[in-house]
Order: sequence, then C-alpha cells, then structure tokens
Amino acid sequence: MLSLTRLNRVRSMDAVNDTMIVEAGDTLLQAREQARAEGRVFPLQIGSQGSCQIGGNPSTNAGGTTVVRYGNMRDLVLGVEVVLPDGDVWDGLRALRKDNTGYDLKHLFIGGEGTLGIVTAAVLKLFPKPRSVTTAFLGFRSPDSALAFFTLLRQRVGQDVAAFELISSTALDLVLAHLATARSPLSLRAPWYVLVELASSRTPEDLENDFHEVMQEGLEDGSILDAAVAAAEAHAMAFWRIREEISDAQTRAGGSVRCDISVPLSKIPAFIEEACASVLKIAPDSRMVIYGHVGDGNVHFNPLRPVFESAADYLQRTSTAITTSVDAIAMAMNGSISAEHGVGVAKRDELLHVKSRVELEMAWRLKQAFDPKNLMNPGKFLPRLECVEALKS
Amino acid sequence: MLSLTRLNRVRSMDAVNDTMIVEAGDTLLQAREQARAEGRVFPLQIGSQGSCQIGGNPSTNAGGTTVVRYGNMRDLVLGVEVVLPDGDVWDGLRALRKDNTGYDLKHLFIGGEGTLGIVTAAVLKLFPKPRSVTTAFLGFRSPDSALAFFTLLRQRVGQDVAAFELISSTALDLVLAHLATARSPLSLRAPWYVLVELASSRTPEDLENDFHEVMQEGLEDGSILDAAVAAAEAHAMAFWRIREEISDAQTRAGGSVRCDISVPLSKIPAFIEEACASVLKIAPDSRMVIYGHVGDGNVHFNPLRPVFESAADYLQRTSTAITTSVDAIAMAMNGSISAEHGVGVAKRDELLHVKSRVELEMAWRLKQAFDPKNLMNPGKFLPRLECVEALKS
Repeated sequence: MLSLTRLNRVRSMDAVNDTMIVEAGDTLLQAREQARAEGRVFPLQIGSQGSCQIGGNPSTNAGGTTVVRYGNMRDLVLGVEVVLPDGDVWDGLRALRKDNTGYDLKHLFIGGEGTLGIVTAAVLKLFPKPRSVTTAFLGFRSPDSALAFFTLLRQRVGQDVAAFELISSTALDLVLAHLATARSPLSLRAPWYVLVELASSRTPEDLENDFHEVMQEGLEDGSILDAAVAAAEAHAMAFWRIREEISDAQTRAGGSVRCDISVPLSKIPAFIEEACASVLKIAPDSRMVIYGHVGDGNVHFNPLRPVFESAADYLQRTSTAITTSVDAIAMAMNGSISAEHGVGVAKRDELLHVKSRVELEMAWRLKQAFDPKNLMNPGKFLPRLECVEALKS
Repeated sequence: MLSLTRLNRVRSMDAVNDTMIVEAGDTLLQAREQARAEGRVFPLQIGSQGSCQIGGNPSTNAGGTTVVRYGNMRDLVLGVEVVLPDGDVWDGLRALRKDNTGYDLKHLFIGGEGTLGIVTAAVLKLFPKPRSVTTAFLGFRSPDSALAFFTLLRQRVGQDVAAFELISSTALDLVLAHLATARSPLSLRAPWYVLVELASSRTPEDLENDFHEVMQEGLEDGSILDAAVAAAEAHAMAFWRIREEISDAQTRAGGSVRCDISVPLSKIPAFIEEACASVLKIAPDSRMVIYGHVGDGNVHFNPLRPVFESAADYLQRTSTAITTSVDAIAMAMNGSISAEHGVGVAKRDELLHVKSRVELEMAWRLKQAFDPKNLMNPGKFLPRLECVEALKS
C-alpha cells in the first residue's frame, strides 16, 4: 500500500489556459473546489469524490456521471508526472492542447492501475462554468424509448447534454425503501426512469424552452410517460440524491451481483433485454437493479437477491453463472466487461476469455519493457504470463 | 513506401452510436462525405483532406482547424486495427465510449508515425450536424487582445466556439497578392485578424444575437478594430478561403522558415512578441507570416524572406538560427516544437535537445518492445539510440 495523501498541493493554476497542476494526494473534491474558486469547473464527478485522489483518478481512468459531455479522466488530463519502476521521474506535466513530438506516453499510465509507474501529479483541464442548468426526471416505457429520446435530445441540444442516467424501477424502489427522506419525483410509476441534466452557456430561459419543446414531443408521442423538471436547485439535488444512493442502497440490501458493462449505444436495449432474460433463467426471482450512464453505453447491471433468499446463498448459487452470462452477452455485442471499474484482481483472469492473445501479449510487452522486475502492483491487472502464452496453442 | 489506397471501404456505420468503421485507404474527404450522407459530421478538417487518408490521420495525430471544439485525431478515434511488426493483426476496433479492461493500446499507434505498426482501419467518432453556424472576420490590435476576446467568447458561448484562427496582416497581404479573386473582408487594416466560427445546436437567431453581443463589447472597449460577419455561406467560404490559402501562398512566395509550435494559451502573446523580436534580430527584413489555431495554443510561425533576397540565400543564411531560436522560446514556455506536423526526419534530432533522457528512453523501450528488429519506419521519429544513451553522461 502506498499513500500519497501528504503530496496534496495545487502546484499552479492557469485560468487563461484552463488548466491546473495538482499533486496526487489532493482529493477530487478539493481539486473541484480549487477550480471553482477560480470560476472554473473540473468536471469529473464520481461518488467517492471526498476520498478518492487526483493520482488514483488517472491511474484508474475514472468515469462517472459527466462522461457524456466531458469524457473520462483520460480526456481530462493533459499531462502527468510519474515515478517509474527504476526510480526515474518522468516529468510529463505539459499543459498543451497539441503536441506531436513523440508517443503520447501519458496514456500508458492513465488506466494502467499503477502497473507501470506511480502518478505523482497531473495537469487537469478546466472548463467555464455553465451559465444555466436544467435537470429533469423522466419516466419511460423501455430502454428503447429512453435511448430514442437521448438521440433526439443530442440532435437538438448537442453537447449541452451533461448527464443521461438510466434507472430501473427496481433501483428507484430500493432507494425509496432505504432512504426515509427520499420520494419519487414522479406521480406515475414507470418501468424505467432517466435523470437528465443539460448544462449550457445559453440563457436559462432559452435552454428550458428548447428542453420543454423536445420533452413535449416525447410526451405527445407517448415515449415519455411522465416528467418532472426541477424548479429549484434543491429539487435537482433531490433527483441526484436518488441516483447517487442506488449503490449504497444495494450494499445495504446485500446480495448483489455487480456487472459494469459497456456496449455501443445502439446495443443498449438489446443488451438489457438479453441480459435480463438470461439472469431470470438462472435465478427467476432476482430483482433487476439496473442503472448507469446510458449516454456513454455504460450500464451497471446488478441483479439483487430475491427478498426470501439470504445474500450468501444467492451469491453462492448465482454469482459466477450471472457474471459469465452477462459478460458473454456484452462481449457478443463488442462490448466491455469493465466499463469504468477497472480490472484489479477481480477481473484479471476473465481477460483471458474476452481479450485476444495478440492484445494480452501487447500488454505484457509494455509491462516487461517498463517494469521488468514486476515491482509495480504485481499480480494485478494482467493475467499471468504463462496463461497468456498458453493461448497460443 | 506503403500504399493502402485500395483498402478503402466503410466497413460499418452506426448512426445511433455515432461511429463508423473506415479502412485506412479512404481519403478524409470521402470519409467526411460518407458521414454527411448519414446526417452526421466527422469533424477533422485539414488542408490535405482530398488526398490524406484515414490510416495516416491517426498515425500522424492530425490536427487542423476544428481542434478547439472536437480535439485532435487522437480524440476522434475510438479504436484501431493494426498490423504489428511481427505480422500479427491487432483487432482493436472497439466502438466504446468507456472500456477499462487494460492499457489503452490505441494511443501507441495514434501519433506513432507508423513506427510500431500500420493502422489498417479505424473507428471514427461522429457528431450531430450543428443547427446553426456563424462565421466572422475580426481585426485586432494585438495577439493579446485577440486572446482576451477568445477567453471572453469561451465564457459566453462555451463549446460553440468551433474555430479561432489568428492571421497576421502579413499573412493576409500574401494571400491577397497571390490570389487574384481574394479581397480583404474588412475595410480597415489591422495588424492582426481572427477568423472565428461558432457552431451550435441553438437557433441561428439565438447564436447570432449572443455573438453580436460579445462582439459589440469588443468593439466598444476598442479591443476589436473592425468586424465582418458572414451574411451567407458564400461569404463564410470566402473568409475560409483566405485562411486556407496562406500556406500555398507562402510556398509560391518561396523562402519561408516554418515553425509549428504550441504553448499554453496564456503564453501566446508573449511567445509571438519574443519570437518576432528574435527573428528580426537574426534577419531584420523578414516578413512575419504568423497564423494558426490560437484556440489550441498552436501557432504556425513562418518568417518569410525579405522581397529583395532570394529564397535560397535567405534559407541558407537564417533557417537554422531562426528555428533554433524560435523553438527555444517555445520550450522555455513549456511548449512544443511540433504541435501538429509531427517529427519524421526533420525534427528527429532536435528532440535530443527538447526532451529529457527519461522520456526518450521510454520511447525507445516502446519501440524495442514492439519492433525489436526496427522494421517499421526505421530512422524516423526517434533520435538514434546511441545519442539517447549519450545523454546519460
């Protein structure tokens, strides 16, 4: 274990270049607040922002709820400083939008889970604060109609779509059962909900008018079943609270199989349909807690134990079968078995089934080139070399 | 030399996922038209679009005039297919926005100038067509006031800024002299011009109102000297023609030292000032042809021979001194000596002076891991290994 908590300075801030250089031990929340103090936004938003750190965010290529607009952490970092396995320090802290003078080495360490070196500081991209924000909670008949609405919305308001979070009715029910203060934002029940946020440099009136127009079309053609638009910030925060509490509510309920998959956007409805059918065949009374960043093609697909079965029994009985089946469905759609949660130990060996020999060999070539003694996060992220070599036969 | 011209199919198009898979031999222009036929935009825009190809665009990490809004080619590619030096084919054609299951290997080949493998196909990101576009030609007193206007504009219209191209008066004069049909868009002369384009999903009226408001502020506080807003598409195209003809006009004039530098945005005015002073010390009658993508911190800084001196004499007398001096000024500002044009042979050895030993060794570790026999584009892109090793002492 390595703690960089005391390496937590903001080394520099350049509001004209819209960048700041932050050390690895600063928490994401602190970095966001330091940006806000300069009238800027650092947009990465994940549940753990109070404890996760600016070194870990690139190392794990963090995602979260703002990827649809701003991209993953990979897209939010212009440069990194890294301690390499041989003790050399690579100063890659360039704050440039364009630089074609060699391999873009920072991408080795972003999403590398610490296996090639340790990120000690990063150049973060900042953005202007949006002038207006509109937040709404919508009810849909199906993932298909939610996706159609996303496509329409992107056509009409483009990059102003700042979040588009799908929530299954089971996920909402779970939050309502666990959080005494939470209330459903809609009076009608729907099988699926979407928390949508638009953020824009236009005037609030203009943004709301455009959103209401698109929403009206959805209500009239029946694709949207019910809708609530936040009238005040407290209202919007209550919508977000529901979304953010799903994961905790699930932990407290106990007995969830958690799959963090992504597929091309167009495949989202088919994925959910096939994966649900498969899970209900394996464990018929599972509660289908499904939510996630549908605007990025990323679904947290987390079947939960039936009310009458213990967590331990359910997991023992179903966990492997569900994971295997759901991952296979995602892979058949050219998807990923870990959209944002990474590999670590838990998914390491599964890579042997979902990656080609060529790709795993390329990964090992990198590892051996940079860390021949296997000092950095050994045993994680990469399936064992012998197992990769065995794929040849 | 390797031609992939016959490998030119669009393998698939997914309008909902906003992606298409295109083979390496398709020209950029063809790919843009194929996207347009589906009502989508592939935004990369460079002068050579009629001849450059979709394989070369990632290999060179192409830039161009739309980077300020859409990023470099690196940001526009979700996946690649690559033939590796050992003959293996890596199928990395994933069309996913999120995938944290290993090192992001595509970034080895993007901007790698073919030294690690040959890109044979790519997954391109598509975007909705903007609803409205506003194009204007503005006159400024100095790069400083142009940059201040850029900052203001970004605050006010955010990601709607689709291009922000600085043009020195010398560059405009050169185009007017060489292109009989070209006319200056402004009645007043200014030392600096900017071609700005906004593209948005708002209504045209709304976008224009917002732009006029910001422009009016600039005219009133004296930072903008004169302005012309395109009233029709033909008008906008005439503005763009001027920008696009600069490079050709320079080639025909003969005797330009071409520097493609980038610095953090905040350093642009200081860079131009220092670099001009330095060049005029080396070669007092040089004509300062300066233009580029200021919104990305990228300036094409291309001093041109005095009218009374031959191209050959001027280049022989000044080329090395000017390049060395201009690059040193950029590097002192934490910039890059090749923002978008790459390394090739021309800049290979200069990397020994502007990169750290650690960084050059990292590059060689990659090269040796993937291409131990040095088969791919040998002798280019990387300074010779002996020279890198000599940096140790």
